[in-house]
Amino acid sequence: MIQDPQAFLRQLFDAAVAAALPDKSIREHLPEPPEGRTIVVGCGKAAASMAKAVETHWPAPLKGLVITRYGHHVPTQRIEVVEAAHPVPDEAGLDATRRVLAMVQDLSADDMVLFLVSGGGSALMTLPAPGISLQDKQALNAALLKSGANITEMNCVRKHVSAVKGGRLAAAAAPAKIVTLAISDIPGDDPAVIASGPTVADPTTFADALAIIDKYGIREPASVIQHLRAGMDETPKPGDARLASAELRMIATPQISLEAAAAIAVGNGVTPVILGDAIEGEAREVALVHAGIANQVLRHKQPAPPPCVLLSGGETTVTVRGSGRGGRNAEFLLALTIALGGASRAWTFAGDTDGIDGTENNAGAIAGPDSLARGDKIGMDAKSMLTDNDGYSFFSGLGDLVITGPTMTNVNDFRAILIT
Amino acid sequence: MIQDPQAFLRQLFDAAVAAALPDKSIREHLPEPPEGRTIVVGCGKAAASMAKAVETHWPAPLKGLVITRYGHHVPTQRIEVVEAAHPVPDEAGLDATRRVLAMVQDLSADDMVLFLVSGGGSALMTLPAPGISLQDKQALNAALLKSGANITEMNCVRKHVSAVKGGRLAAAAAPAKIVTLAISDIPGDDPAVIASGPTVADPTTFADALAIIDKYGIREPASVIQHLRAGMDETPKPGDARLASAELRMIATPQISLEAAAAIAVGNGVTPVILGDAIEGEAREVALVHAGIANQVLRHKQPAPPPCVLLSGGETTVTVRGSGRGGRNAEFLLALTIALGGASRAWTFAGDTDGIDGTENNAGAIAGPDSLARGDKIGMDAKSMLTDNDGYSFFSGLGDLVITGPTMTNVNDFRAILIT
Repeated sequence: MIQDPQAFLRQLFDAAVAAALPDKSIREHLPEPPEGRTIVVGCGKAAASMAKAVETHWPAPLKGLVITRYGHHVPTQRIEVVEAAHPVPDEAGLDATRRVLAMVQDLSADDMVLFLVSGGGSALMTLPAPGISLQDKQALNAALLKSGANITEMNCVRKHVSAVKGGRLAAAAAPAKIVTLAISDIPGDDPAVIASGPTVADPTTFADALAIIDKYGIREPASVIQHLRAGMDETPKPGDARLASAELRMIATPQISLEAAAAIAVGNGVTPVILGDAIEGEAREVALVHAGIANQVLRHKQPAPPPCVLLSGGETTVTVRGSGRGGRNAEFLLALTIALGGASRAWTFAGDTDGIDGTENNAGAIAGPDSLARGDKIGMDAKSMLTDNDGYSFFSGLGDLVITGPTMTNVNDFRAILIT
Repeated sequence: MIQDPQAFLRQLFDAAVAAALPDKSIREHLPEPPEGRTIVVGCGKAAASMAKAVETHWPAPLKGLVITRYGHHVPTQRIEVVEAAHPVPDEAGLDATRRVLAMVQDLSADDMVLFLVSGGGSALMTLPAPGISLQDKQALNAALLKSGANITEMNCVRKHVSAVKGGRLAAAAAPAKIVTLAISDIPGDDPAVIASGPTVADPTTFADALAIIDKYGIREPASVIQHLRAGMDETPKPGDARLASAELRMIATPQISLEAAAAIAVGNGVTPVILGDAIEGEAREVALVHAGIANQVLRHKQPAPPPCVLLSGGETTVTVRGSGRGGRNAEFLLALTIALGGASRAWTFAGDTDGIDGTENNAGAIAGPDSLARGDKIGMDAKSMLTDNDGYSFFSGLGDLVITGPTMTNVNDFRAILIT
C-alpha cells in the first residue's frame, strides 16, 4: 500500500536518475588498469561528470581531455575539460578534437584509452576530414537534413567526411586497448550511433556514401564531393585488426534507469510495467495513449492489476503552437492529466533525467486525481493552457514542479503512472 | 510457433468481429420472455442486425421498430426497420422516434420492452422536447460543439432538451420491464453515454443544464433557453420507480472483442497483452507509441516475452493534410510499418470492426517485415505516402488490404502486433 503516491513517484524518478549518474555506474564498469599509460578522452553532455568519476576511482596514473557543452563543466583534478558548442559545432570543439586525436597517437599495446561518450558527443567532438572546412561540413549537414535521407543514410555520409567518427578514433589509438564507457540517449542504444561511433567499426563505405549523395541529388559542397570521390582513408571495417581489442561498456541507458525504478516499485509491492525505453511521438498524443493504458488498468486490470506503475522512457516532441512555458514533459503531463480527467486512483510523473525539461528550471512535475480541480479553483483552465503549450505554468501554479537542477547525465525522459 | 503470421492476425480480427456480431451475442443475453407482450425498439448502426438476431431467437410473439442509418438495412420478418440520417438527424428519424415512443405507451407490468442500442443511436433516435424544433436543437448542438464544453456537459444539456434521452424512453415504457441490449463503441462503455442513455437514469438537472449554458455564454435559440428555464418534465433520477426494473446487458464491447482475440492467441501459444480497449489519439502518433512498445518486446522482452501479441482497441483520429486515400487504420498501419522499419519479427494488423475503414472498401490491412522493401521495389515511398494520408494506396499496392464488407456491428478499431 502506497501511503504517499507523490513521494513514491519522486522516489522512482530519483532512482532512475541515480542509476544514470556516472559516479556509481562508472566505478562498476572500470576495466583493470593497463601496464602502460592511461589516456582518458571523451565527449558529450555528461563528459565532465564522467571524467570526474573516472579520476576519482581510477587506481593508477592517467591524463586526459574531454569535451562537453558550454555550461556543463565540472571541476576535475587530472582530466582537462574543454567546453564547446552544441548542437552546432564551433572552433573550440574542433581544436579540442585535434588535441584528443593527438593524445591517442603513438601509444603502445601496453597503453589504454578510456573513451567517455554521452549524448551530444557527435557535435562536440567533431573534425572534418582533411580538405573539408567546418562550413562545408555544416552545409552538407543542412543538405542532408533537407533531403529526406534517413538517420542511417545521414550517418553513413557523416562518417565518411569525418576524421574521428565511424571508428576512426579507435583506429588512431591502435595498438592501445580502447575501452568505451557509454551513456546512451539513443533509441536502441546502438553504439555505432552514439556520437556517430568514434570507436565502433563501420560496415559502410565511400561508395555507399556517394550512392546516398547521388540518391538525394546533393551536389555540393565541392570539397565534400571531391573527398567522397577520392575515397582515401576508409573507415575501419568489422574485423579490422586496429579495433580488435576495442571494448564497449554501456554504463547508463534508459532501460537501466527504468529497471532501477521498477526495482523500487517491486520493493513497495507495486507491479512495474515497462512499456518502452524509447517511446517517441508528439507529447500530447503519447499522453493520450498512456492514459488509454492507465484506463485499461483501472477498468480491466490489464496489462497488470493495481497497484501497478506504468513506466516509459524515450523522448517525445512538442509542436509548439502557443506561447506558453514548459518542456516536453510538462506538455505530456498536462495532456495526461486532462485525459485521465481526475481518475481517482491515478498519480503521474514526467521528467527529464538531465534535470532540465526544455529550457525551464524544472526536471518535471507530478500530478494526481485532484490536479484539475485544484487548477480550476485558482482559475487555471487546463485545456486552454495545453493549447498554449503552457504546461510549466500549470504545474508551477499548483506548486507541483519537480526541481532537481542539472544532473550532469542524460538517459532521456522518465514517465511513471501509478495506479493504486 | 506461428507458421503463417498473416493468417494468424486475420484469425484474431475475425474472432474480434465475430464476438461483436449480434446473432451470437444477443442469443446469449436474451432475457426470459414476459407473461405479456414483447415490444422491440432500438437505434444505432447495428439496429437492423440486432433486430434480426432478436426475432430469430425470441421464442415468443413480438412486434417492434428500430431505426438505423441509411444503407444499414437488413431484411427482417417481424420487426420494422426504418432508415434515417446520421450524424445529422433528419425528419425520418424524428418520425420514427415518435412511433417508438408511441409503441411503448400504455404497457403493463407484465409486458417487456427490449431496447437495442448501438453506436450512432443518439442521432438516429432523436426527438426534441415539445416546443423545440429540429432546427433549434441543431443550432444548440452547433453552439455546444463550438463552446468548448466537454462531453459530460454537452450530454447534460442534450438530455434536457430531448423527449427520449436521459432515461425518458424507459420512463415512458413504465411499468413494463425494459431490458437494454447494448453494443458499445464508447470509451469506458458508459451506458448513460451510448445514444445518450434513453433507458438510463440521469442524475443531472435542468439547473445543471442552465448553469452550463450560462458558463459558455449560449443565449439562443430562444425556444431552448425557455424550455430549460421552465424546467418542466425532469429526467428520471437514480432511484426513480419507473426505472426500477430496467436492466442493461452489454452484448458487445471493444473489450469483449479484444478478449476473444486474446483467447485465440493463447490457443496458439502466443501471450496476449491487451494495452487498452479505448486507445485514442492522432493515428500516426498512436502508431509511434505502439512501435515503441513492440521494440521493447523485441529488445527487452517487456511487457511480455515473444511470442506475444499486443492488442488494442478504440478510435484514433486523422488530421488530414494530404490528398491520399484511406481511413484511420490504414494511416495507423502505414505509420507503424515505417516506425518498425522492417523489424524482422514483427507482423501487424489494423482494421475497423464495422468492416469499413473510413470511406474505402477495406476493413483494414496487414503488414510485415518485408512491407517497406516490397513497396520500395514497386516505387512506393512509404514516408511520402504517409505525408499524403495515402495508407490505402500503399497497402492496396502491396495487395495487403483486408476486405470483409460491412459487418453490421461496430466495436471500433482492432489493432494487433505479433512479435515472434
